[in-house]
Amino acid sequence: MSRKTFHLNAFLMGVGHHEAAWRHPRTDAHRVLDVRQFQNLARIAERGKLDSVFFADTLAVGPRIERNTLAVFEPVTLLSAIATATERIGLIATASTSYNEPFNLARKFASLDHISAGRAGWNIVTSGSVDEAYNFGLDAIPEHARRYERAEEFVDVAVALWDSWESEAIVLDTEAGIFADPSRVHTLDYAGERFRVRGPLNSPRGPQGRPLLVQAGSSESGKEFAAHRAEAVFTAQRTVEDGVRFYRDLKSRLAKYGRAEHELKVLPGLVPFIADTVEEAKALEQEFTDLISPDYALRQLSSMLGVDLTAHALDAPLPPLPAESEIQGGKSRFTLVKELAETEDLTVRQLIGKLGGGRGHRTFAGTPEQVADELQTWFEAGAADGFNIMPPYLPGGLEDFVDRVVPILQERGLFRADYESTTLRGHYGLDPVESQFAPRDSRVSA
Amino acid sequence: MSRKTFHLNAFLMGVGHHEAAWRHPRTDAHRVLDVRQFQNLARIAERGKLDSVFFADTLAVGPRIERNTLAVFEPVTLLSAIATATERIGLIATASTSYNEPFNLARKFASLDHISAGRAGWNIVTSGSVDEAYNFGLDAIPEHARRYERAEEFVDVAVALWDSWESEAIVLDTEAGIFADPSRVHTLDYAGERFRVRGPLNSPRGPQGRPLLVQAGSSESGKEFAAHRAEAVFTAQRTVEDGVRFYRDLKSRLAKYGRAEHELKVLPGLVPFIADTVEEAKALEQEFTDLISPDYALRQLSSMLGVDLTAHALDAPLPPLPAESEIQGGKSRFTLVKELAETEDLTVRQLIGKLGGGRGHRTFAGTPEQVADELQTWFEAGAADGFNIMPPYLPGGLEDFVDRVVPILQERGLFRADYESTTLRGHYGLDPVESQFAPRDSRVSA
Ligand SMILES: Cc1cc2nc3c(=O)[nH]c(=O)nc-3n(C[C@H](O)[C@H](O)[C@H](O)COP(=O)(O)O)c2cc1C
Ligand SMILES: Cc1cc2nc3c(=O)[nH]c(=O)nc-3n(C[C@H](O)[C@H](O)[C@H](O)COP(=O)(O)O)c2cc1C
Repeated sequence: MSRKTFHLNAFLMGVGHHEAAWRHPRTDAHRVLDVRQFQNLARIAERGKLDSVFFADTLAVGPRIERNTLAVFEPVTLLSAIATATERIGLIATASTSYNEPFNLARKFASLDHISAGRAGWNIVTSGSVDEAYNFGLDAIPEHARRYERAEEFVDVAVALWDSWESEAIVLDTEAGIFADPSRVHTLDYAGERFRVRGPLNSPRGPQGRPLLVQAGSSESGKEFAAHRAEAVFTAQRTVEDGVRFYRDLKSRLAKYGRAEHELKVLPGLVPFIADTVEEAKALEQEFTDLISPDYALRQLSSMLGVDLTAHALDAPLPPLPAESEIQGGKSRFTLVKELAETEDLTVRQLIGKLGGGRGHRTFAGTPEQVADELQTWFEAGAADGFNIMPPYLPGGLEDFVDRVVPILQERGLFRADYESTTLRGHYGLDPVESQFAPRDSRVSA
Repeated sequence: MSRKTFHLNAFLMGVGHHEAAWRHPRTDAHRVLDVRQFQNLARIAERGKLDSVFFADTLAVGPRIERNTLAVFEPVTLLSAIATATERIGLIATASTSYNEPFNLARKFASLDHISAGRAGWNIVTSGSVDEAYNFGLDAIPEHARRYERAEEFVDVAVALWDSWESEAIVLDTEAGIFADPSRVHTLDYAGERFRVRGPLNSPRGPQGRPLLVQAGSSESGKEFAAHRAEAVFTAQRTVEDGVRFYRDLKSRLAKYGRAEHELKVLPGLVPFIADTVEEAKALEQEFTDLISPDYALRQLSSMLGVDLTAHALDAPLPPLPAESEIQGGKSRFTLVKELAETEDLTVRQLIGKLGGGRGHRTFAGTPEQVADELQTWFEAGAADGFNIMPPYLPGGLEDFVDRVVPILQERGLFRADYESTTLRGHYGLDPVESQFAPRDSRVSA
């Protein structure tokens, strides 16, 4: 393929991203408790040659237990079970920098990278809900800026831990009696503001050197952090214009960290409803929207905005909202929702319907060709290096995408016909991670 | 089976427990990096209907990187990969109460319990090496007594988290639109000396209610903690007399916690060298002993005793050692090694040979019948409810045990002919864990 191609991640959640997915006859709610369901979904995505699957996580059930089908599996243990049921597809898990120790987190992703032979990715989050804070001895969400400061230091430590074993450290010399060469395994003696970690990590350098670093914050601090550290970014963008603006903004921040544009892939989300005709696709979407229970959706909206709307009239517009600067939770989603309601002049009920598909991510209903066109448009407009596909219901929504949209993308030369790499980093077209101990002449040049 | 039977755990480590295992031609050192090796070992153990496999862990490479084949996989991610390759065998992983947050640890074991359909077990350790402390911002090992105090509080919180969802909380009512019933999912609002955790856990009650709680400390605090919390105890005992003493000691402590003797299973370790004749078995053991490199072994011994012996003469007895009360690392292993050297009047070189098989655990070389006799003797003397089998080399040492010793034990009615339960707790003959919310009349009576 000489043409520039894009990347595809499948964001898998419960029985699908749509607010009412699990009430729809196309899903089977019992499967959210069954690891085989998730192994099967990853195999479907692998059949489509997708770059990766992704599992989100939060560290609290949150205010909507009735709907929180996320609250079953811890994503790294889940991906470990998926790793052995798949061969090539990348495996991305969320983990929090606010409520973990860098040593433990670096260890578990190193372990996943070994188990999967180089397919681990980490979606770095700072955990913006107060319910999470309560589970870790705190009375409030740590301040937004402080969370990102901790994230910076946390990633410093984790990266240093992953880089503490030289590639040649494992010698396995049975004759001389040496498993690993201690002169090639190094302490870090890291001493920062928040962490002191001696190292080395208790796991040899992984097949990828380190996991793919993914990030999904879109606030000012979030974008700066992504520009510094992330290799892939998930983002919610409503229009192609917004997408282009975000894309240019993020890429323009890379140079000051000595990074090239291709070193960070921007992946806007899309929730596709796919059917034979556009009418059927829209009817399908409507079926799901009709199943939304307004009271649950109001709580979802309240939690996204950090403002209690549960007593608010459904057929009125949103009440006046605080400025983004006052928000300590997720800033960018707050602003996206606020702007959506304002620019389209929506009542709360209308807003709930619009958000039902993907909590602020772009929803699109159409034929396989139209979905392919939509992705191509965003890609060619410079709004995306690839897409975060968020099936509204599972497994059907993923199957339709893989079996009906992917072949069109392949046909058009926009997506790989087969895997060309064995690692997640390789799928995303990233250079191998160079060891700090690599001999000068063998280093990959940037 | 009307006869009382015992339990068997396979403690799997690298290419075997013997200090020099990986230098022996019966092992393949490259396999320590291969998850399929460990899946295969678990399948072998399952073929023998063993209760469980167990993976140890420490949170540092330690002073013997050359030999630390343990430092590859994090055990819970490894067991998750093993869970999907097996069906019945229990899966026990070490995790530390000193360097984790209760919420995260409870979550990952709940996840493993869901993934394995009720086969998760937690070996609770307090992490007694200074190298671990250095990776978590500390300059010294926290005091022995403080570590056990933290462990007590930690387990309190974890148990409460596992008990925060009622069994009937998951309703999956697609009609009414309810995944889980929030009135059946409870906060803990735990506020102790070290932890404040609101809860509930973000994972529904696991198939076992909670994982099997395992413990392996044999100091005074360790035994008291085990009597309070553990359902299975791993222990290193050199003679059947020592074993009986330990067994009685531990069981006699249960009553004050309102527990019955059968609620805690005592599992002494055994490192079996198995061959057709006793001479061949002893020759096999000698082959391994001959492969020990004294300098590595000296470092192992130094680290076990917490005393630097690397400059000490090999053919002299141990230097004077401190009293157990001064040891902040592992107390019981210190005393076991000290007493072994003193009672048998061993030089350091002789001590190293004796310890090579299993770091202080009993080594036994004999025919399959003799190994079976040995287990039967300990069991019938009242020194054990079962055994922690520590194959000196892998996979051969495990295969010989499973294919040659287990059938004899089954023949004698000492071990199950097939699994009689689907959960790890069930294998160990423990009552199901009662939910704190179970209606009175449906509670299991003790
Ligand atoms: C596709 C996508 C996936 C996300 N997954 C998670 C997640 O698993 N856990 C989490 O706590 N936050 C998740 N987030 C939220 C972001 O990490 C971030 O906290 C949020 O966008 C607010 O960040 P900001 O304040 O920088 O805008 C996700 C966001 C997006 C767009
Ligand atoms: C069979 C067995 C397995 C053990 N596994 C671990 C382990 O994986 N990680 C660890 O830190 N300690 C492990 N230990 C050590 C004990 O947890 C404990 O720390 C040690 O025996 C000292 O405790 P004490 O001071 O109460 O005697 C193990 C001990 C035994 C007997």
